[in-house]
Amino acid sequence: MVGRTHGIHAEPTTFGNKLALWALQVRRERHRIQRARRAVAVGKLSGAVGTYSNINPRVEEIVCDRLGLRPVPATQVLARDRHAEFLYACASVGATVESFALEIRHLQRTEVREAEEGFREGAQKGSSAMPHKRNPVKSEQLCGLARVLRGNLQAGLENVALWHERDISHSSVERVVLADSAMLAYYLLVKFAGIMGTMRADPDRMLANLEASHGLVFSQSVLLALVESGLSRDDAYRMVQRNAMATWESERPFAEVLADDAEVVAALGADRLEACFDLRRAVANVSRTFDALDALPGGPGGPLADDEGTEG
Amino acid sequence: MVGRTHGIHAEPTTFGNKLALWALQVRRERHRIQRARRAVAVGKLSGAVGTYSNINPRVEEIVCDRLGLRPVPATQVLARDRHAEFLYACASVGATVESFALEIRHLQRTEVREAEEGFREGAQKGSSAMPHKRNPVKSEQLCGLARVLRGNLQAGLENVALWHERDISHSSVERVVLADSAMLAYYLLVKFAGIMGTMRADPDRMLANLEASHGLVFSQSVLLALVESGLSRDDAYRMVQRNAMATWESERPFAEVLADDAEVVAALGADRLEACFDLRRAVANVSRTFDALDALPGGPGGPLADDEGTEG
Amino acid sequence: MVGRTHGIHAEPTTFGNKLALWALQVRRERHRIQRARRAVAVGKLSGAVGTYSNINPRVEEIVCDRLGLRPVPATQVLARDRHAEFLYACASVGATVESFALEIRHLQRTEVREAEEGFREGAQKGSSAMPHKRNPVKSEQLCGLARVLRGNLQAGLENVALWHERDISHSSVERVVLADSAMLAYYLLVKFAGIMGTMRADPDRMLANLEASHGLVFSQSVLLALVESGLSRDDAYRMVQRNAMATWESERPFAEVLADDAEVVAALGADRLEACFDLRRAVANVSRTFDALDALPGGPGGPLADDEGTEG
Amino acid sequence: MVGRTHGIHAEPTTFGNKLALWALQVRRERHRIQRARRAVAVGKLSGAVGTYSNINPRVEEIVCDRLGLRPVPATQVLARDRHAEFLYACASVGATVESFALEIRHLQRTEVREAEEGFREGAQKGSSAMPHKRNPVKSEQLCGLARVLRGNLQAGLENVALWHERDISHSSVERVVLADSAMLAYYLLVKFAGIMGTMRADPDRMLANLEASHGLVFSQSVLLALVESGLSRDDAYRMVQRNAMATWESERPFAEVLADDAEVVAALGADRLEACFDLRRAVANVSRTFDALDALPGGPGGPLADDEGTEG
Repeated sequence: MVGRTHGIHAEPTTFGNKLALWALQVRRERHRIQRARRAVAVGKLSGAVGTYSNINPRVEEIVCDRLGLRPVPATQVLARDRHAEFLYACASVGATVESFALEIRHLQRTEVREAEEGFREGAQKGSSAMPHKRNPVKSEQLCGLARVLRGNLQAGLENVALWHERDISHSSVERVVLADSAMLAYYLLVKFAGIMGTMRADPDRMLANLEASHGLVFSQSVLLALVESGLSRDDAYRMVQRNAMATWESERPFAEVLADDAEVVAALGADRLEACFDLRRAVANVSRTFDALDALPGGPGGPLADDEGTEG
Repeated sequence: MVGRTHGIHAEPTTFGNKLALWALQVRRERHRIQRARRAVAVGKLSGAVGTYSNINPRVEEIVCDRLGLRPVPATQVLARDRHAEFLYACASVGATVESFALEIRHLQRTEVREAEEGFREGAQKGSSAMPHKRNPVKSEQLCGLARVLRGNLQAGLENVALWHERDISHSSVERVVLADSAMLAYYLLVKFAGIMGTMRADPDRMLANLEASHGLVFSQSVLLALVESGLSRDDAYRMVQRNAMATWESERPFAEVLADDAEVVAALGADRLEACFDLRRAVANVSRTFDALDALPGGPGGPLADDEGTEG
Repeated sequence: MVGRTHGIHAEPTTFGNKLALWALQVRRERHRIQRARRAVAVGKLSGAVGTYSNINPRVEEIVCDRLGLRPVPATQVLARDRHAEFLYACASVGATVESFALEIRHLQRTEVREAEEGFREGAQKGSSAMPHKRNPVKSEQLCGLARVLRGNLQAGLENVALWHERDISHSSVERVVLADSAMLAYYLLVKFAGIMGTMRADPDRMLANLEASHGLVFSQSVLLALVESGLSRDDAYRMVQRNAMATWESERPFAEVLADDAEVVAALGADRLEACFDLRRAVANVSRTFDALDALPGGPGGPLADDEGTEG
Repeated sequence: MVGRTHGIHAEPTTFGNKLALWALQVRRERHRIQRARRAVAVGKLSGAVGTYSNINPRVEEIVCDRLGLRPVPATQVLARDRHAEFLYACASVGATVESFALEIRHLQRTEVREAEEGFREGAQKGSSAMPHKRNPVKSEQLCGLARVLRGNLQAGLENVALWHERDISHSSVERVVLADSAMLAYYLLVKFAGIMGTMRADPDRMLANLEASHGLVFSQSVLLALVESGLSRDDAYRMVQRNAMATWESERPFAEVLADDAEVVAALGADRLEACFDLRRAVANVSRTFDALDALPGGPGGPLADDEGTEG
């Protein structure tokens, strides 16, 4: 399929490569959630200002142990940088799901149609006014909710600076944002998994779109071949750009337009020119993303090791 | 010194305990920065859409190796959840420094005066209009800058969802916020270290303030002693609250007011009543915070191990 | 041109209607900026806590008058809700420019190509690697900067709650965000005006895209005509949806597919069916947006009256 | 009472002046809410992309009229800069209430005790563990909720840039933030009104605190008197600062310490020195804030005129 930068056709890529990059990103989010969980899975029972003035520290140990929490030094309350980290992890999960959902929305555009959210005929009606429409409403919903997660993080970071051994200003905030963010992050993940499970990809459209820019997605290959043939980069660039513009105007295949350009043919010859348009060569190395996935301890879906670094 | 919750005198604590809790929090921030550094210390040289279409993957390895970066799969750009993590770490550092600076501002209030920022007589002038004033202006400055760091994070999280193999909308944001946040987080740490190096604590004022609430900071000890003596919690509570109010009104020591209350004396006896006001007992267990510091691998200032958990 | 909801072709609209809606939105932003300017164009010279303890109030009047400011009661500083309003107005301008720039990015997509940012051939090079590309980089830049403006507002709203007659925590924030937001909001407006001045719209592509969905953009007209002819809405909906799906699959004109459907023809007849596909009728009422523009006091670009309401 | 800047005693002010400034700020918030209400009290019934393709514009007029809304040109949806303005107004109300609530929290500190939230003896219990405590928990709660309002605004500003004639990403956001912000802003106002209705101010403590800094709050008067007597500002400053430090150390009245300084007495004489400590003179001009209140059309609580400017 065509890879797009700035929304403009750039070079060929594969749909699988997109998804493999997502899997690596999901792995990073799992790390963030796992670490945030560890940061907040702590407890304290050390009294009004954290001094165990009227409580035996053993009580804290026993209670925390029962609750699966680690006892930590505190004031009256646990330090709120911990809960801010949890809200950050939720917001980061949101931003990651948003980036995936945004891709689906783009791929489902009428002009693109390379993928679309599952649509249960009969059960689901699409637009009430316009019977022909199938809208990526689930992906849009997730993009929106990512914004709520960001706003909640903001509030959570303001909660860190409390007065002395605590004030209770963080409490009213957390009653709203901790529950909302935890549920929303979970909702986003569940819903997005649902989207992925029923999404339809359309390989024919992918190929048709790739070809719709008349082979211009190979312009860099031509540019580099011209440079290798001995032209200066500036000369090669102008030569390619000239033919690219002619291609747009004439709507003829870029390869043909180039083949009509005496200067190009003189520099490259017909065979080298044709080789520039080899789709297999263009995506020969995308396997490296999959190698990175395979190299993850336990594979992409495996459990995270405690000492595993941030990165997939 | 007095521990305060809601800005109200609560129970005794120690200044050292406050600082030890800070050291643990700083440790957590060092982890966040270290992990964020690892998340962004990656590189890519895999071409226009990340497929190595016209570049040998070995080049990426060699260049990244020279730059001390880890090569990772990418589109045209590295995924922006990485840079958002860096901005989060900066914002969290900001919130933590803010919480410390806020404490200093509170302690320097005219009515409190338990600590104050260093003030170079001669070199520094204080308020231009009011020669008697020494303002905690450095701490105030740091509290403000933490807000900027939070705002920058917000922008960074919006950068994650780019179009297809990248759009360049994140770039204009990052030219502002990446540099600003990195410098501000560093500035906050350097400046706060400077504040700590020259701050003056006033143990006499700490003791005076502790006593200024007439011994009411021991009210919980009295409450619990009454409960232990056999009273219901409700009865004990009312008994203590009644005497607490009388203490505020008469401005006499709480211990004396209680000693005049026949019911209290009947329940506790003079010795047990006096024992409730033992300052040493009240802070006997604060050493646990220091134990937690000592238990950190390498001590509070030691290097962070790669596999060290989040928590100090 | 085709109007799109959810990124999916919906119904015909016109490019002029899009721009007219923008003009109305710009008018609202001008109001916000004008009001914010009024909110911050105030001054005070009333001493250390705002009591004119050692200054004659006349001095404040004279100085403010010279500076074109309105003197207002204050503490040591002017209340910061004023400056937050200014930052809000800048952020709102940012969000509005972002929404316009986002539209241009969408219209410039390779698959859409209905408009594109001006591109100075010769002077400007496009993608360095891919000579065929013309990227909407200016619009992308503006979309990014809107995020910075939002983050700055967040910091500004945190500045409102100062201690007593002021603390100076807002100052370090404002040194960053007031200047940045003022300049960025101005930059966005100037740059976007530049984009509009050189943008190319492509009416042929607009028409081609409108037709590319085979006339399905008229599905609502058909639906309503069927309902008017006596069918239940559910029956009409199923009838239209059935033919819409057949249209996508066969890639034949929707009008032809419908004309082959005996039930549809029985209900509507050929003439009424054809009338549903009348493009002129579909956009006959868009003039109302222009009427709203004309109704603005002084026209869309006219000066704002002091007592003019928010709305255009 | 003492006016404080940076948390440090500065100069005398009055409690009434504080409240009068609040009344002016509340007036500004009422304007913001009123304008935001006008911005969102609009409606549309113009069809799938806002072209009235299948609906008579008269229907829109009639329906909006029934609902008390103003019909405005739109796409499928009303432009979201309007709803962002509403969320801004709510967030600004939040920041303003936060600034008032923060003041109460400061005034209720054990060391200050100049005001406190109403406390229903019997009905209300205070701290469960510490019977002597009365915590400003309502004010703390409001300070927290202001953070939620800020976060929601952030999400609302991200909603402005929708795709083409609308995408539905704003909807999931608004289901959370529009209702929450509207209710929270209302809640903050109602709760804060309740706090104000039952708050107790303590004039004795105000006077005691004013005097607790030994008269140093008059240092500027002394400084200016010395300058008027012919000394350079630098000499005068050093002279006052020297005596201010001696005052803190000796805890003797500043007036007495100055009276023992031969240089000061030589410059000012006893009468002019004494006049510097005149409390009435120090606050003689605070009436100007009340004049500003009186000058509001309809008084501080009066209805806002449509054409009333932003400012009180």
